Parts: sequence; structure tokens; C-alpha cells
Amino acid sequence: MDLIEKRTAGEIIDARRRAKGLTWAQLAEASGRPVVWLTSAVLGAHPVPEEVAATLAEQLELEDDLVEALRRQPYRTIDPELLSDPTIYRFQELIQVYGPALKALIHEEFGDGIMSAINCSIDLRRGSHPGGDRVVLTIDGKFLSYDWVASEG
Amino acid sequence: MDLIEKRTAGEIIDARRRAKGLTWAQLAEASGRPVVWLTSAVLGAHPVPEEVAATLAEQLELEDDLVEALRRQPYRTIDPELLSDPTIYRFQELIQVYGPALKALIHEEFGDGIMSAINCSIDLRRGSHPGGDRVVLTIDGKFLSYDWVASEG
Amino acid sequence: MDLIEKRTAGEIIDARRRAKGLTWAQLAEASGRPVVWLTSAVLGAHPVPEEVAATLAEQLELEDDLVEALRRQPYRTIDPELLSDPTIYRFQELIQVYGPALKALIHEEFGDGIMSAINCSIDLRRGSHPGGDRVVLTIDGKFLSYDWVASEG
Amino acid sequence: MDLIEKRTAGEIIDARRRAKGLTWAQLAEASGRPVVWLTSAVLGAHPVPEEVAATLAEQLELEDDLVEALRRQPYRTIDPELLSDPTIYRFQELIQVYGPALKALIHEEFGDGIMSAINCSIDLRRGSHPGGDRVVLTIDGKFLSYDWVASEG
Amino acid sequence: MDLIEKRTAGEIIDARRRAKGLTWAQLAEASGRPVVWLTSAVLGAHPVPEEVAATLAEQLELEDDLVEALRRQPYRTIDPELLSDPTIYRFQELIQVYGPALKALIHEEFGDGIMSAINCSIDLRRGSHPGGDRVVLTIDGKFLSYDWVASEG
Amino acid sequence: MDLIEKRTAGEIIDARRRAKGLTWAQLAEASGRPVVWLTSAVLGAHPVPEEVAATLAEQLELEDDLVEALRRQPYRTIDPELLSDPTIYRFQELIQVYGPALKALIHEEFGDGIMSAINCSIDLRRGSHPGGDRVVLTIDGKFLSYDWVASEG
Amino acid sequence: MDLIEKRTAGEIIDARRRAKGLTWAQLAEASGRPVVWLTSAVLGAHPVPEEVAATLAEQLELEDDLVEALRRQPYRTIDPELLSDPTIYRFQELIQVYGPALKALIHEEFGDGIMSAINCSIDLRRGSHPGGDRVVLTIDGKFLSYDWVASEG
Amino acid sequence: MDLIEKRTAGEIIDARRRAKGLTWAQLAEASGRPVVWLTSAVLGAHPVPEEVAATLAEQLELEDDLVEALRRQPYRTIDPELLSDPTIYRFQELIQVYGPALKALIHEEFGDGIMSAINCSIDLRRGSHPGGDRVVLTIDGKFLSYDWVASEG
Amino acid sequence: MDLIEKRTAGEIIDARRRAKGLTWAQLAEASGRPVVWLTSAVLGAHPVPEEVAATLAEQLELEDDLVEALRRQPYRTIDPELLSDPTIYRFQELIQVYGPALKALIHEEFGDGIMSAINCSIDLRRGSHPGGDRVVLTIDGKFLSYDWVASEG
Amino acid sequence: MDLIEKRTAGEIIDARRRAKGLTWAQLAEASGRPVVWLTSAVLGAHPVPEEVAATLAEQLELEDDLVEALRRQPYRTIDPELLSDPTIYRFQELIQVYGPALKALIHEEFGDGIMSAINCSIDLRRGSHPGGDRVVLTIDGKFLSYDWVASEG
Repeated sequence: MDLIEKRTAGEIIDARRRAKGLTWAQLAEASGRPVVWLTSAVLGAHPVPEEVAATLAEQLELEDDLVEALRRQPYRTIDPELLSDPTIYRFQELIQVYGPALKALIHEEFGDGIMSAINCSIDLRRGSHPGGDRVVLTIDGKFLSYDWVASEG
Repeated sequence: MDLIEKRTAGEIIDARRRAKGLTWAQLAEASGRPVVWLTSAVLGAHPVPEEVAATLAEQLELEDDLVEALRRQPYRTIDPELLSDPTIYRFQELIQVYGPALKALIHEEFGDGIMSAINCSIDLRRGSHPGGDRVVLTIDGKFLSYDWVASEG
Repeated sequence: MDLIEKRTAGEIIDARRRAKGLTWAQLAEASGRPVVWLTSAVLGAHPVPEEVAATLAEQLELEDDLVEALRRQPYRTIDPELLSDPTIYRFQELIQVYGPALKALIHEEFGDGIMSAINCSIDLRRGSHPGGDRVVLTIDGKFLSYDWVASEG
Repeated sequence: MDLIEKRTAGEIIDARRRAKGLTWAQLAEASGRPVVWLTSAVLGAHPVPEEVAATLAEQLELEDDLVEALRRQPYRTIDPELLSDPTIYRFQELIQVYGPALKALIHEEFGDGIMSAINCSIDLRRGSHPGGDRVVLTIDGKFLSYDWVASEG
Repeated sequence: MDLIEKRTAGEIIDARRRAKGLTWAQLAEASGRPVVWLTSAVLGAHPVPEEVAATLAEQLELEDDLVEALRRQPYRTIDPELLSDPTIYRFQELIQVYGPALKALIHEEFGDGIMSAINCSIDLRRGSHPGGDRVVLTIDGKFLSYDWVASEG
Repeated sequence: MDLIEKRTAGEIIDARRRAKGLTWAQLAEASGRPVVWLTSAVLGAHPVPEEVAATLAEQLELEDDLVEALRRQPYRTIDPELLSDPTIYRFQELIQVYGPALKALIHEEFGDGIMSAINCSIDLRRGSHPGGDRVVLTIDGKFLSYDWVASEG
Repeated sequence: MDLIEKRTAGEIIDARRRAKGLTWAQLAEASGRPVVWLTSAVLGAHPVPEEVAATLAEQLELEDDLVEALRRQPYRTIDPELLSDPTIYRFQELIQVYGPALKALIHEEFGDGIMSAINCSIDLRRGSHPGGDRVVLTIDGKFLSYDWVASEG
Repeated sequence: MDLIEKRTAGEIIDARRRAKGLTWAQLAEASGRPVVWLTSAVLGAHPVPEEVAATLAEQLELEDDLVEALRRQPYRTIDPELLSDPTIYRFQELIQVYGPALKALIHEEFGDGIMSAINCSIDLRRGSHPGGDRVVLTIDGKFLSYDWVASEG
Repeated sequence: MDLIEKRTAGEIIDARRRAKGLTWAQLAEASGRPVVWLTSAVLGAHPVPEEVAATLAEQLELEDDLVEALRRQPYRTIDPELLSDPTIYRFQELIQVYGPALKALIHEEFGDGIMSAINCSIDLRRGSHPGGDRVVLTIDGKFLSYDWVASEG
Repeated sequence: MDLIEKRTAGEIIDARRRAKGLTWAQLAEASGRPVVWLTSAVLGAHPVPEEVAATLAEQLELEDDLVEALRRQPYRTIDPELLSDPTIYRFQELIQVYGPALKALIHEEFGDGIMSAINCSIDLRRGSHPGGDRVVLTIDGKFLSYDWVASEG
């Protein structure tokens, strides 16, 4: 069994998904997982737990080397070229334009610290408006305050 | 009247705000503007309309050159060094980890296109959870579909 | 059926096109699509709709994996090395030289906002002049104004 | 008389223009020059001919060091940070998405060569459409073919 | 009172410290703070609480604008040139050489997650060895596991 | 026998390890080596001595080309993309935030010089705290003072 | 017939040339083309006209896929690593040292404009001098003046 | 006498030159130096010998600090932003397009080595052609062959 | 006979060398070449003369394609990632720390010019000292003075 | 007493040195320090011991703020633009061309480890040769072997 790079595996599994006419939402429901989590995990951003991998293997008829790739712990990195894809870039631009304000408001509301990107969930849904439908993205991360703590004992 | 660079003006106005003991939320309320908008605008990301500038000038006793800087059309850029501030960087990391999944789900739900970063609002609020309070960020942008349109007439 | 990277597919289809002696303009006409759109789509910048892919497959005798690549949603990115090709670089240089002026004039004419690169069409034609023929490029994009809008309901 | 950097001079003259309530279009008309040319020249992209500089000096009451800066031959460069301003960036994105197609079509229509960025004019106008007004940008550059020519005699 | 950039303030305060013949350890003790925390805070990495700032102001005879800079919330960034200082670079090299191993061992011992750089303390002490004295650096950060949590209610 | 790149070999050996259900700690114990050393060496950061390579070959049933790769002297470099993996990046961030303070304190305690990254050991262990378990990383490197020494004779 | 990347084709044809003991000068003479043009074209910088390709194919016994690669329109880019080859780098260094002076003198002699890199020929010959033989490089490009021209009609 | 940065001095002296209506060619003739050498030296690329500095000081009425800057040994570097000025960039593009060919032909004609950028002269002149005047640049550098030589004795 | 990239060939030949238990010093002696030259040449930095290639082919039983690669003229470049290998990086650091001083002293001793990296030999030997053995590196390059010379006749 | 940046101080002291007609060698001799050490220290690479600073202050009539800058602990970094100065760049090029060979030979002669850049001295002298005088640079650094050592007790 050869090693398949996790992101390559994600592209192959995605092609299987399209070929079978399944949506990410359907796979997420079948797996009992939130759709942003499931999609990012398949595309290579998370190690997939055994039971979720089993569900995906069954739904998409995956070979063992693809399952092994799903299960594996990833390096959570991105090919920097992808950040310039227009759909992804707009999020980059929002950080560029609003990053300093978000920092100022997190400090005003919570004090010195950050929003965790580890203890964090993301939801994407359709919003409605007379001017046209909207993408509504909710990022919900634990506040972590700067704390100078050492182990005990 | 010398020209003050818009971001420098933002730092000076921010120092005035702290010296007067006013929160961003209070300034936003006084201005009748959402707090993320108001904060980013003062820090240099938007041209500030006349009436909002007047309110800020009054509340913070701003000199004319600071008001002129607030009113001016900005280049909406950022010193790249700031993107590595931990509080801002976590948002960068989220795009790195979840960007491909968000792209896939936007295409699945809306078709080929992007979430606008121009027709877009952002809200930041405190969420509660037994494990600790949470930062809840909502980004709400109009979906724009790839469309090959030309002017008429 | 192996996955072929979309840009690789574009190079192979382009070679087929040359081997068959067909111009981009002829393919565009056969497909009922504007030539800048059709060319960029084949080279990997757009997902190709089913009927256009069918026309191309017939005209150029494409195998299924090439058709699948045409149909697939792309990452709209570019290998940065290509931006230094002299024919492409001249457009880069125009942004470098005239970018600030175009920004100033868009704001003067339309207010605070941008020209959309998503709701946008491009036309390239030959212009005539005693000093020599000219390349005339028309970019026609919807104006989007900065708008702080949120979903309703 | 101290040397004022040409782009700094452009920012100061722009502030004068706003303070006097003059549009770029009005300055262009007074100078007898196309508006994209005049705007870019004032912002630092061109050496300004004597008579145009005189007109600007009169209209905007410019001091000698500002006139000297206008007249001076520039380095036509840009602070790279400005390329990420959203209004300018959309043009960058268009090159990224459509650059290879424009190259292919220039070669198909004209042969091996480039569109000149030196013998080139640019026009920006408002286009109309039921879906909203549009920015229409026309770039009109001489075609230059690759030619292996040497001086005679 | 002019704004002094926080890192500039740190350099000035450091010069005061040397002029007065005080060590970082003495300042830390006087402030009742761990020495790594105190040193980094003075050099610009943390907002300094009121009572610590008061102690420092007294010990080092600081003017109000320096105290204001100490108290201010920082951008926790670094001039990238400083990372190549040999004393700092050796830490960079350790991450380069041992980073993948540390990642593998954190995942083996704790599961999928990270060591927090926010809830984290650092201690630096002298170690002894027949071959020469040693720098012993202890980094003690809370383990955070990847957790898909959302606010309640 | 083909040459296998050392880091590729590390990934293959790691997959063998997982397939056999062995931990890094177990491999380290079997090899009589500290676990951070053993893990980094297998992943490509050190040449592996003959007896350790023999132990690993036996435990993991390694083919000769993998053993040869383990034995080989490495370039101790890292694909820069990996430095942005969140688990590794937190160490980068600590250098960014605390690097100048660590430099100041090394100079205060030891004089002008560096902590060696060559004569250096690293230990990773679990620390306990009511607020949650902690990653405790100890870096122990020889102090090297700047010394202008030349060979004798 | 597989597609061979144009630069790869150039390396293969170059190896054929060496194996046959032919110089670039001989190939250029056989092709009736200047040697700098012919060499750069074979190495991938130009599309090769049919009759030249035929001559090369005959002289070097080239297969069809190599001829096809010669004929193809190139992206005229370079792997940036090659710019640091010492023989090429010296030209980079000359631009670094003399670029501003050449710009000043082109403007003094010709006015505002550039030397064309498209309508341009290059000659390389041996020069003699008591201190040692010399490389004499002549670059001969058409002067293009900045001209704001639009198509007629 | 304050230190003036050498390139800043060059800009000031250049402004004096323009104010006095002197060309670079006239200054070169007065100094008895080739014009490319003289221009680059004044703009900061060479230390200017005493007698040349004296001539320039007299012709342009330079203060002592400007003369001192002219005389000083430079770092021969360039602000990288200037390399993108269109007039300079065309030379960059020529290296990109023709660099590999020039390298191949230098090796064919002279063997393994480089054209010196140190023992090197440059001449710029106007060439004539029915299609328009031309910039003719001659670079004349000593060939240096790779030679493994050590000092004697 | 396929083309083998010169650095790949170097890695393969190095593996042969290790497999045969030969040192670089032994190969250098057999070839009658200095060891730094021979090692760098085999690893891809020089074209290897016929007789040296023949010796190496005999000693290491090299196939024709490896010999062809040795003989070939190289691009003398380096994968930039390798510069961060600690053993190589220390030389980088020395240039960073001492580069400006070496420049000043070369100018003081020799005048305006450089040490040639082309007419240059390098020797590496073991030095002894009570504090531990030392690496002694001698770089011996011809001084080249800036000289404005042109070909004669 | 204002803080003067250490490298700025170095430039000022260097100007004093030239104005007084003193060579680096004379200053080194007066200070009783090797010339490469003394030169680099004055230019900002080392903290200067009290007695050396006193000698320099006397010889060059330095003000207190310059002496304070000399005494201060530096960040041993370099403005990256300076690395492209031709006199410094040749050393960069040598690492590029010979770095891998030097690494291989250090490992062959000494085992796995590095040449120290901290316990290291550098000497620059004139070498003679019929073909022209030579720059002879000797770098003499302690070999440090990779050693997994921890503090005792």
C-alpha cells in the first residue's frame, strides 16, 4: 500500500463524490458531522476518526490507501498559490481591511488575548436580502487570555 | 494644514479615545454606526462621512487635520508585519485551514462565484459556553456569481 | 479515469486545437460564447457548462478525462512565473503606472467602491491607426459600492 | 528650494484639489489633456509639460517646488503595498484570471508580440445596464511584433 | 504628549536601565513579575499593568509618554530582520530541525492539538555541566485540543 | 538500490510504525535513545548510527534503501510551508513575541554569545495543572561566548 | 505524441547538438539566422518558424515532438534560480549598478520613453585588448516614446 | 558637516544640474570622463576621484557635504522598487529572455567563465533606422575564466 | 541515453562513493585535483574535464549518462532551502556579521574593487587548539579593480 | 543624550576616521585588536569593551552618545540590500557555488557538526601571484559536533 499525500487523497475523494452525485451536505449528514468540519477534513485539514472514515469509505467506495490518508494526522498548511483564488482571497481581503478593528474590539470586550483557532467552529449558511442572497459565515472561537501559567508539582 | 497619513491619524485618535476613557462601542453609538464599521473607519479603513466625522470631532476634540484625514478616501492596505500579530494571525490561520472547504461549500450552495468583501457587514459579539466565553464573528456578504455582462447601448 | 489537473488539460486541448488548425475564434463561435471567455475557460479559468464541453469534445475529439477537467470548478490562480511573460507583463506594468489614477477616477465618478472582477466581461479587438495596428482591450465590470448590509430575518 | 519626492507632491496637490472643490475631470479639461493621463501625471506617473504645469499651478496655486516636482522625470514605480488596495487589486485579479487567454488571443490575432504599454492610451467611462452602472475601461495600445532589427550604417 | 512607538519606548527604557546599572532580574524582582515576562513586556510584547508601570516609572524615572507606551496594548510583531540575529536565530534553527518531531510527539502524547502560545510561561536559567555552562529554557504551555465547539443559547 | 530522499524515507517509516502500532516512545526505548532525538532522526534530521538503524530495521522490517536513507548525512532543512502548521507555528510565534527578551536575558546572565543549537538537547513532557494538562518543553544548550580564537602552530 | 515542455525540449536538443559536435554558430549559419536569436529560440525563448525548424530537425535528427515544441509559442519566462548563475548574474549586477544612469541618459538623448525589448537585436562578439580578450555585447533596440494614442475610426 | 547619503546627494546634484541647464554629456566632457561612467558616479555608483569632484563642484556650485558624498566609497546597491521602472525593466526583461543564450554563447566562444562586471565599460549611443531611431548599448567586459589559483610564497 | 540533471547525478555518484568506501580526499588524489574543487565539481558546480571524468568513471564504475552529466557545463545555482542547513548557514551568518568590515578592508588595502569568485581557490583543513580542533577555511581570490576598459581596434 | 542606532554611529565614526586620515589598520593597532574584529565592531557588529571604546574616543574625538553606541550590545543583522553590493556579493556567490562541497568535507574530516561562527576569527591579507595580487581570507572556527547533552544536577 503506497502512501497517498493527504491533499491528493482529498482531490480524488472529491472526484468520487461528484461522480456519485453526492453533496458535501449529504456526506456530512451521513457522517453525523457539521458540514464545514467534514468538508475540510476530507480535503485534508483534519485527521478523520475511524467511524467517520468508515462511513465515507462505504458511501464513496474508497480503497484502503485513501482511508489511510483520511485517518492520518495532517500538516494543516496550504499551497500559498491557492490563497489568491478569488473566492478564498475575499476572506484575505477582509482580514486586511478589518483585522486591526477586530483586534481592537476583541481587546475592548475581552481584554488582552485572542480568539482560538483551535477550539473553534465555523458555520456557513445562506442569508436572504432584497438585494440578493448572502453568504453568512459564523466563526465561533473560545477567547483565550494571555496568561503566564506554569505546571504544578 | 499638513497632511496626516490616515493610519497615523487613526493612532492619534485612538490615543485621544483612551485618554478620554471612551470605548469604541460608545463612539459607535454616538455616531449611529455599527461598531466594527466605526472602529475600522477611524483606524483608516474607510472614508468617514461628514456627520460622523463631526460627531467624532466633537466627542474627541479633534483638530482639523485629523478630521480631514478621517474624511479622506483611503488605500485599504495593511502593513504586512501586522498580519503576524497573534490576535489577527488566528484569522489568517483559519483561512489557511478552512479556506478550501469554504470555497467548496460556497460553490455547492450558490454556484460559481464569491462572497463580496465590499457589500459586506461584520459583527463581533460575546458568546457563552460552560468551557469559557467565546468570540462570535459573523461575516455577512452578498453572493456574487461569475457573470459575463457588458454595458448596453 | 485519472484526474488531470485543469491547466494541464488546457495545454493538451490547446495542442489538439493547433493540430486541427482551429482558431480560438472558431471554437468560440461554435460554442456560442465570447472568445475571451471561451479561451480562458479552456485554459483553466472557468468551469465549462455541459453543452459547451460537449461542443468542444466533438470539435476536438476529447477523451472523457479532458471533458471532466473542463467541467470541474477551478482554483482561479496563476503560476506567478507566467506574470513575467512580456505579453502578460505589459498589463502588470499598466496597473503599476496607472493603478492609482484609475482608483482616483473610479472614486470620483462612482464614489467609494470597486469595479467587479466577477460580474465583468472583457473584449479584445484590433484597432487601426496610421502608426500601426492596435490592440484594443475593453474591460466592462459592474460598479460595486462599499455597503454595510446584513441579511434580513 | 528643497526637493519634494514626486509622489509626495502628488498627494499634496491632490489635497489642494479637494480643498478647492475641483474634480480631476475639471483639471483635465482646463489642461486640455485626457483625464486618465492628467490624473496619473499629477499623482507622479509622468513628467508634466511646461504649459500643463503652468495651468495646474494657476488653478491650484502651487508653489515652485511642487511645480518642479510635476515637471521632473519620474521613476514609474509603485509602492507594492498599494497593489492590494481592493479597487486596484481587482485589476490584478483580472490579469491573474484572464492573462493567459489575452496572451493567446493577441498571438492569434496579431502574431508573436505584445501590446505596448508605452504607446498606449486608457479611457475610463460609465456604462449603463439594468443590473447597475458599470465601469468601462478601454486600453488601446500599439501592437509591437518581435522583430530582430539592428541600426543601419 | 506625543505618541511614542512601543518598541522605541522599550529601547529608551532599556538605555535608562543600563545607565542606572539595574539588571532585568532586579527590575523583575522589584515589580514582582517573572523576569522573562517583565523583560518582554518592557521591550514591547505586552501591555504593562498599572502597578507594574508605576514601579518601573519610579525605578527608572520614566516620563509620562514612556509610561503611556508601556501601558498600551501592543501589536506583538517583530521586525523580521531581528530574527537573523545569531542569538535569536538559533531558536529558529531548532524549530527548523526539530519542529516536525515536536509536532509528532505532541500528537502522540496529547492527541490532535497544539501547545498554547497564549496560556504559556517561559523560564530561562543557567545549567551546569563539566563541558561548560548551559542555557536552560523551559516553555510551559497549555495543551489545546482541536475542538469543534459553538456558543450556547 | 535507488536513492530515497531522507524525508520521504521518514514518512514511509512513520507509516510502518503506525501500521505496527508502535509509539515513538517505544521505538526510542528500544533504541536506547531520547525520544525527541529518535523521532527527529527518523523524520530526517540526523544521520542514524549503525546500531540504532539496525534496531529500527528489525522493529519495523525496513528494506535496505530505507536503512541507507536513515544512515545518510542530512541537509537539516525544512519545507517552509510546514512552518505554518498550527502545532509548529506556535513555536515560531513564541520566538516572535519573546525572542528579543530571551536575547537580552542570555546576554545579562552569560555575556555576549548564544545558546548552541548543536550541543543541545530537547525534552518534551506532560505537565499538570488544575486548568488543564500542559506541554513542557525543555531546551538545554551550551552557552557559546563570542571568542576571537585562531588555530595554533 | 506527448507534449514536451519547451525548455525541456531545448535541453534535449542542446544535448543532441553537443553529441553531434555542432556549435551554436554552425547551427545559426545553417539556419540563416543570427546566433543569439537562434540559440535563444532553441532554448525556448521564441517560436521557431517552419523552415528553421526543418533545418534544425535535419541537422540534429529531431523527432516530431521536439519539432512541435520548437514551433510552439512560448511563455518567455525564466526559472528565477537561473538568474543567480554567475555568468548570467553579472548582467543583473550591471543593471543594478548602471540602471539609473542608463535611464537618465536615454531620457537626455531621446526624451521620455524606453528602449524596446521587443524590436531589439543582440550581438555577442570577442573583443581584443592587451589585458585579455573581452566579451562585447551590443543591444540595439528601437526607442519608443511615451505616446497617448488611440485607435481611429 | 552632516553625512548625506550618497544616493540622496546624487538626487540633489541632479536637480542642480537641471537648474543650471547642463546635460550629463556636458558634465562628462568637462570632467574628461565617459558619460555613462560620470552619470552613474554622480548618481551614487562610484567613488568620484578628487579632480572630477572638483570639476563638478565648480560647475554645479556644490557644498562640501555634497562633495564628500561624491568622494565616498559606495555600497553599489539599488532600491529594488526602481528595477520595475519601465525604462530600466526592459533591460531586466532582456536578461530573462536572452540570459541562457548569452551564457551558452559565452561558454562556446570563451570557455567556462564570465564577462566581468568590474573590468567593464558601457556605451550608449543613438542608432538610425528607417523604422525609427534606436538605442544602441554596448557592454564591453573582460572575459574571466574559472581558474583555481592560489597565492604564491 | 536520457539526460540526468547534474545535481541528481552528483547525489548518485556520492552514493556510489560511500558504497565503495572512498573518501572525497581519495577521489581528489586519484584525480590529481584539489579536494574542494573535486568535491564541488562532482556535486554539480563545475564541468569536469575529460581525464578527470575518466578517472572518476573508473573508480566509481559510472554509467555513460553519469559521465555525460559530469562533463556538462552547469548552471552554478543552489536550491535556496539548502542555504539554511546549519553547516552551510554558519558561512551565511559570517557574511551577515562581517561582510561590511571585509568590504571596508578590501577597499583600504586594495582600493575600489572586489575579490574574484571566479579566479579563486578554496582550501579547508583541520587546525589545532587546546580548546578543540578547528575548521580552517582559506579563500584566495584575485583582486579585481573597477576599471573602465573597452576593446581596442 | 539621545540614542544613536549602532550602525548609524558606525557610519559617523567611519567619517571621522576618514576625516582624520586614519586607516582601520592604525585604529586596530592603537586598540590592540585584530583589524577585522575592530572594523566590524566599529561598524556595529560587536559590543566594544570599555578600554577599546576609550581608545577610539580619544583617537577620533567621539562624543558620549557615539561611545555609548559602541559599547551597546548589537543585534548582529544586516540590511539585506547590502548583501548585493558586488564586493560583498562575491562571498555570497562562493557559498552558493561551494557550500555543498564545504559541508561534505567538514563532515568527512570532522564528522556530523558545524564550524562555529561564534568561536571564530577572520584574517584578511594580501597574497602575491604573477597574475596579480590576491585577497586571502582565512576563516578559523571551532568545530562543534552535534551532541545531545543536558545539564547535570
